Amino acid sequence: MGKDKVHIFDTTLRDGEQVPGCKLDTKQKLVIAERLDELGVDIIEAGFPISSPGDFNSVSEIAKLVKNATVCGLTRSVRKDIEVAAEAIKSAKKPRIHTGIGTSDSHITHKFKSNREDILERAVAAVKYAKSFVEDVEFYAEDAGRTDNDYLARVCEAVIKAGATVLNIPDTTGYCLPEEYGAKMKYLKENVKGIEKAILSCHCHNDLGLATANSISGVINGARQIECTINGIGERAGNTSLEEVVMIMRQHPYLNLDTNINSKLLYDTSLMVSDKMGMVVQPNKAIVGSNAFAHSSGIHQDGVIKNRETYEIMDPHDVGVNESSIVLTARSGRAALAYRAKNVGYELTKNQLDVVYENFLKFADRKKEILDTDIHKIVETSNISISTFT
Amino acid sequence: MGKDKVHIFDTTLRDGEQVPGCKLDTKQKLVIAERLDELGVDIIEAGFPISSPGDFNSVSEIAKLVKNATVCGLTRSVRKDIEVAAEAIKSAKKPRIHTGIGTSDSHITHKFKSNREDILERAVAAVKYAKSFVEDVEFYAEDAGRTDNDYLARVCEAVIKAGATVLNIPDTTGYCLPEEYGAKMKYLKENVKGIEKAILSCHCHNDLGLATANSISGVINGARQIECTINGIGERAGNTSLEEVVMIMRQHPYLNLDTNINSKLLYDTSLMVSDKMGMVVQPNKAIVGSNAFAHSSGIHQDGVIKNRETYEIMDPHDVGVNESSIVLTARSGRAALAYRAKNVGYELTKNQLDVVYENFLKFADRKKEILDTDIHKIVETSNISISTFT
Repeated sequence: MGKDKVHIFDTTLRDGEQVPGCKLDTKQKLVIAERLDELGVDIIEAGFPISSPGDFNSVSEIAKLVKNATVCGLTRSVRKDIEVAAEAIKSAKKPRIHTGIGTSDSHITHKFKSNREDILERAVAAVKYAKSFVEDVEFYAEDAGRTDNDYLARVCEAVIKAGATVLNIPDTTGYCLPEEYGAKMKYLKENVKGIEKAILSCHCHNDLGLATANSISGVINGARQIECTINGIGERAGNTSLEEVVMIMRQHPYLNLDTNINSKLLYDTSLMVSDKMGMVVQPNKAIVGSNAFAHSSGIHQDGVIKNRETYEIMDPHDVGVNESSIVLTARSGRAALAYRAKNVGYELTKNQLDVVYENFLKFADRKKEILDTDIHKIVETSNISISTFT
Repeated sequence: MGKDKVHIFDTTLRDGEQVPGCKLDTKQKLVIAERLDELGVDIIEAGFPISSPGDFNSVSEIAKLVKNATVCGLTRSVRKDIEVAAEAIKSAKKPRIHTGIGTSDSHITHKFKSNREDILERAVAAVKYAKSFVEDVEFYAEDAGRTDNDYLARVCEAVIKAGATVLNIPDTTGYCLPEEYGAKMKYLKENVKGIEKAILSCHCHNDLGLATANSISGVINGARQIECTINGIGERAGNTSLEEVVMIMRQHPYLNLDTNINSKLLYDTSLMVSDKMGMVVQPNKAIVGSNAFAHSSGIHQDGVIKNRETYEIMDPHDVGVNESSIVLTARSGRAALAYRAKNVGYELTKNQLDVVYENFLKFADRKKEILDTDIHKIVETSNISISTFT
């Protein structure tokens, strides 16, 4: 039986770019959009066309450029927004309008100074209006994470009737726990009439570090689209990391879920986005951080040298990283030192290794990381007679 | 009814330091240890004493310095390791030895070239030997995440009998999904005879971005200790982030779990560790990233200005951040511009704001972020007569 497909909705160029210090020009956005298309994302959210003339122009150019993915523009539930978005994406091979409104009591009361019935009507009107321009209309129920499930189900039912093809259930504030977010998806799957006509979508924020887990809980419970960004960038603590959800599904075949992503392009895409946006990726970032496949402790290094699977569940090649590096520090053991020494030409016997290792520890206590040049120094200042390969 | 206490076991100075480019000297470690004690962590894992003379010395000095927390030293299930660790922590007010061995078939076969019965005996012997030096002995079942539950339960039962006070169930490779990790804890809670005499501990790695979610799933299912690091640093993609798990419990009171952490010190502690270790924290890091409380999109900014709760679930002051900043970019709306303009002295009428906003968008399309000095320029080059406060 084939796996169920989870659509990857990339919002690097919209929610991801919505970040202090992250302004991209149209040319940079086009380069990223082309790469996302090549990576295999299903939908590219290209921007929020009404927000500024520059953004309108970027969305419009991306719509012309992209070959395979759906190109999507964001709007509020406002006629002018929808008209401008429709205009911006009109050249796309597969255009989508993403419209919506806040549905939590906090949003309804404080932001809209309105009531539930009025918000429901506005939601339906927005979807109907968007539908007059394009076939593919995604509806977001902003702050769905804090929206009462019963009211949320009513909103979903109404917008499906109005023609929505995708229902985005955002945890806008990053508040939900995975169980809770999954239960919300399950509730909608079971209680919304006509739900089989639409795809449920996860849009999670990372304020408490749970965006990835919440999205996975969402797809386990019936959602079939994840909204995410490269490197998890985005408003505040960011969005779900594309690379994390993709690799979780691939590493857990029993979930029976997969995406269209060419994972071998993940690392290079991460570098490209980080570079163009000027947004640093921390070394301990999952999948794409510079240390993600580096081992420096003796116990771990010894295990990896004996059998990679002992400490690594992923083959670094699968995400485009060339090899897991054995880094030498004061925490490294004999096996790692022997491995690295061999790489630079020293074949050490067990007794030689004991002597060189003592000398190595003295060096390593003074220095963060031992480089190949240091290894030569360490071996040469150890009291042994050396045999080299060359 | 009081909340159940979850012990915070900080391993910034052991698993966190076990990272390429992260070597700290003893003096730096002492400064961090003192801060961790002040932060309110329950246990400080100070190092792996047998690994190098420098590490032995650091653990020994930390043991003398720390006032409140338990000080812990790591060992393998090896007599010499345990003797050296006992010596290093002997001055601690509350000393703990953390010993253990790999229990997954992958570890047993490839790393130890042994069998389950032999590993069980070695585990028991190590705990008994550690117990001859200190009362508080924690046992780790390395790669528990991939260890068969039935065998894991047998190991746990045997080491509790041998005197272990804490059982560490590490997801060493960062492979588990939250449901699976939680189910493992539940299984042990229900199937290990004598489990009430020991505390179950979560030790999760972040290879798939799930360390935080797994740890929370662990405590929901009965664990009462979380092993974590400041900023989530550590081997490969790092460990569970201390700041994330602490704030998740605090933001979800219905879990009825809490820690002893003084959360107002979190941000400053994050900066201190990042600075001393030279490990960058990415701007979109949850809780402590530089953008974690920054809003730049118009929709969000408008909401925050009307009512902070619309988009923020946490008060930034609670984690030691002074205010959530309203950042002006091309995505910002009128409300944000009016707010920032007011901060620098311009009280704009609705009509004036319309004019200035058009001018602002032209500036913002060319510039990543609009500073206070830019606001003066924008207002002055807009065709309006200005009234200022001053």
